[in-house]
Amino acid sequence: MACQGRSIRATNAAIMTSAIYPGSFDPVTFGHLDVISRAAHLFDRVVVAVAVSESKSPLFMLEDRIAMLSESLEGMPSVEVIPMEGLLVDLARSHGIFTVIRGLRAVSDFEFEFQMALMNRKLEPRLETVFLTPKEDYTYLSSRIVKEVARLGGDITPFVPAAAASRICEMLRRAV
Amino acid sequence: MACQGRSIRATNAAIMTSAIYPGSFDPVTFGHLDVISRAAHLFDRVVVAVAVSESKSPLFMLEDRIAMLSESLEGMPSVEVIPMEGLLVDLARSHGIFTVIRGLRAVSDFEFEFQMALMNRKLEPRLETVFLTPKEDYTYLSSRIVKEVARLGGDITPFVPAAAASRICEMLRRAV
Amino acid sequence: MACQGRSIRATNAAIMTSAIYPGSFDPVTFGHLDVISRAAHLFDRVVVAVAVSESKSPLFMLEDRIAMLSESLEGMPSVEVIPMEGLLVDLARSHGIFTVIRGLRAVSDFEFEFQMALMNRKLEPRLETVFLTPKEDYTYLSSRIVKEVARLGGDITPFVPAAAASRICEMLRRAV
Amino acid sequence: MACQGRSIRATNAAIMTSAIYPGSFDPVTFGHLDVISRAAHLFDRVVVAVAVSESKSPLFMLEDRIAMLSESLEGMPSVEVIPMEGLLVDLARSHGIFTVIRGLRAVSDFEFEFQMALMNRKLEPRLETVFLTPKEDYTYLSSRIVKEVARLGGDITPFVPAAAASRICEMLRRAV
Amino acid sequence: MACQGRSIRATNAAIMTSAIYPGSFDPVTFGHLDVISRAAHLFDRVVVAVAVSESKSPLFMLEDRIAMLSESLEGMPSVEVIPMEGLLVDLARSHGIFTVIRGLRAVSDFEFEFQMALMNRKLEPRLETVFLTPKEDYTYLSSRIVKEVARLGGDITPFVPAAAASRICEMLRRAV
Amino acid sequence: MACQGRSIRATNAAIMTSAIYPGSFDPVTFGHLDVISRAAHLFDRVVVAVAVSESKSPLFMLEDRIAMLSESLEGMPSVEVIPMEGLLVDLARSHGIFTVIRGLRAVSDFEFEFQMALMNRKLEPRLETVFLTPKEDYTYLSSRIVKEVARLGGDITPFVPAAAASRICEMLRRAV
Repeated sequence: MACQGRSIRATNAAIMTSAIYPGSFDPVTFGHLDVISRAAHLFDRVVVAVAVSESKSPLFMLEDRIAMLSESLEGMPSVEVIPMEGLLVDLARSHGIFTVIRGLRAVSDFEFEFQMALMNRKLEPRLETVFLTPKEDYTYLSSRIVKEVARLGGDITPFVPAAAASRICEMLRRAV
Repeated sequence: MACQGRSIRATNAAIMTSAIYPGSFDPVTFGHLDVISRAAHLFDRVVVAVAVSESKSPLFMLEDRIAMLSESLEGMPSVEVIPMEGLLVDLARSHGIFTVIRGLRAVSDFEFEFQMALMNRKLEPRLETVFLTPKEDYTYLSSRIVKEVARLGGDITPFVPAAAASRICEMLRRAV
Repeated sequence: MACQGRSIRATNAAIMTSAIYPGSFDPVTFGHLDVISRAAHLFDRVVVAVAVSESKSPLFMLEDRIAMLSESLEGMPSVEVIPMEGLLVDLARSHGIFTVIRGLRAVSDFEFEFQMALMNRKLEPRLETVFLTPKEDYTYLSSRIVKEVARLGGDITPFVPAAAASRICEMLRRAV
Repeated sequence: MACQGRSIRATNAAIMTSAIYPGSFDPVTFGHLDVISRAAHLFDRVVVAVAVSESKSPLFMLEDRIAMLSESLEGMPSVEVIPMEGLLVDLARSHGIFTVIRGLRAVSDFEFEFQMALMNRKLEPRLETVFLTPKEDYTYLSSRIVKEVARLGGDITPFVPAAAASRICEMLRRAV
Repeated sequence: MACQGRSIRATNAAIMTSAIYPGSFDPVTFGHLDVISRAAHLFDRVVVAVAVSESKSPLFMLEDRIAMLSESLEGMPSVEVIPMEGLLVDLARSHGIFTVIRGLRAVSDFEFEFQMALMNRKLEPRLETVFLTPKEDYTYLSSRIVKEVARLGGDITPFVPAAAASRICEMLRRAV
Repeated sequence: MACQGRSIRATNAAIMTSAIYPGSFDPVTFGHLDVISRAAHLFDRVVVAVAVSESKSPLFMLEDRIAMLSESLEGMPSVEVIPMEGLLVDLARSHGIFTVIRGLRAVSDFEFEFQMALMNRKLEPRLETVFLTPKEDYTYLSSRIVKEVARLGGDITPFVPAAAASRICEMLRRAV
């Protein structure tokens, strides 16, 4: 791997690279964690931005969604979790990070993500969206399907980290 | 933008990041150059790997495709152009670069690229494919459509750099 | 058709084949009936499982949806209609039927159904989802579009069986 | 699982079910074998029909494609492999089998398969196409991509059965 | 351009052509205006029909949506804006206009629009849906995304006409 | 239908409307004829432009493809058939017709057609592509699939007009 350093700019220190991974994380799944782990290999620092998402009326409160992520990411020092209250482009500007990570699982994902990437670039030309492909085992996985399985009494431990599984069960017990 | 340096790993020197952008480039279009330019903002070094592509029977010889790219990329010192004779994963291993760049314009792109990304990951688990979205002005652009327009007598200068436009015209003159 | 019996296992009695066709059926359309009819040709027994679907807040109560289906399927003795309260995999296990029927009309159907098929297989590896293609005349048909047409005063008799048409009209009269 | 026999037609012997799985199999992959194995669980007898496919100019001769399949399917007595020279509907009529199996991996598959299913139904209304979903591990797999990997010197043993791997290597040695 | 009149029917007066452009317009965007402008080049008269859309619970009242459109279309005498309370086919019959305009931006648009076109043709065989492609700059644009950007404090003036921008701001001020 | 004439510009004579329907028509199918018939209802004059299509190596010579179309369109005086040797935009300019008709059957159609529409608009901003939806019975139909069915000995009379069916049979007899 020696040749990795033979760059034209090798005498200069490389720039610190950072990326934002925005989402609702209602709740975090193993699919999200897979994308975060891949991003952490590509970038020096990954900022997971949890959207308030009022318009989607999430199942979990913002604090719970942040807590589930933070507990699941404990072994990854280069990843931090923050709330996002306004537009992604405002967060990007205030942090000076103009690289955005998104995971792509399926064609329907692609279309929506593509529109969002173009819209965000319109709002802030410096913003670059970088798409990663999660492990094919997670193709079927989404926060929505996990909540549906849980609501119908299914076992969700193969799909979400322990920090999320316990909170989902608690939430459903309270709902009864 | 001061906070960009406030990373947990800020005391260590950041690692030099490199990426491979593979393709046939038969010929290079403004869409390819847009993706390369975006990649050059994200990575310290970008290696453009021109596939021999015997099975596709390209219009231009490998040397011509490399020359068109090199001339078009003259102002970008962090980008280099090399031939690729075997599998992408072999090139990745020999260069020690495990990040691959691909552009996504449309759903049909997405499906094929998704399959290639999963196949390459199967062949080499360290390989990570990173998808970028070219400017929406280039949605309609492909090497194939440029060659078709040229063959039918259309003006291709809005679609390819000068280095490619002149070679395409020369090629068509010879074919008469 | 004599050769159909020339199987290697012809001396043994063939196994009884059964399949589940799950859905909301809110209300049943001619598209659903077409899929059920095709399934009844392929399997000895078809169990139509009507999901409670609380999260979708259906227009018709579970009993009404079951009644509309049962009345429409009166001439088909190998088809039965049952309610489904929990997960499909739990119903599959309790009935010992591991073949699931789904209809595919369009790409958007395909993506969602594909995710559901993979998720159900993860929850129960014996579960096999079998996709059938309804008659192309029903490409445009869905329960949602039928309800929209009815609400706006359109004639829905070309799209749903009589048992459903009368109930939809009654429902809309009551809503006024 | 006792209820599986409680069908309305339980006193009669169930009918023997058969299905045709048509394709080029140039060469057979683990994706094809996965679909065949699923079909063998659903049907009493599976006839794998290998298309002559002159218009596709296959890499392997018909006999080789049949041999690779037959060797790979040795442990499955209810599966047989035959050549198919004309239309699928003619084979279906001559064998009296009107159920056709196809695997679906991706949206692009879906569109083409959907058109073929509708065309075949037009040519023979009794023909029913049944779509199965292969294991998600095989999403990236196709005969075309395997041949490309082999041609570029990659290891294809994770993608095709031994009977195919050895023939592909032999074929490539001869081509040198 | 003289040859445009050399039609076989040139001695007769050409028929007056009209088209309906239906939608929710909640609110009108530059994408809608681009489609209307293209339609006005193709047809002698364009009727923009604003759906009541109770089931979608629009942000703006019908009168406001009509007002925003009317103000934005002031310079186009061949375009008129009317409310649509029932089915599109009923409006088409009452106006004697059987050509419907729709814009296509993406694959997901296409599928839904395709279903609607087939359904409308079933309800009224004379109805013909004509799809136009907006400028590629508007690929990312939809009423939904504009409302989301506004709600999160973003600048929407690049996406909607002034008549809409002021009303959206007013609406959001009132909501606080 | 009296209100169709109540346009703002009703006192002026309406402009004569014309459209080009380009394609390879190798051979013409009932799907093409359905699109032409719909176009003839919308426009005063329809010019069917048959592309030379050297790069696609068509089965039929240009004269045969034009003859098959002309014979099939005999009862439609407002439709004429012409050859197209260069770019569509050049034909559009020389005829002064800037409206182009294309049929949309499926998502894969849509993507390619969308790219062509944007490319043509780039080459000639006045060019407007108008998409029509053929009858759903023709969803499965394409020139390619008709040639495949004919080659394998199937009956193609349900798919192509008599003028094409006889020529295809003749062509195949000669090929033996």
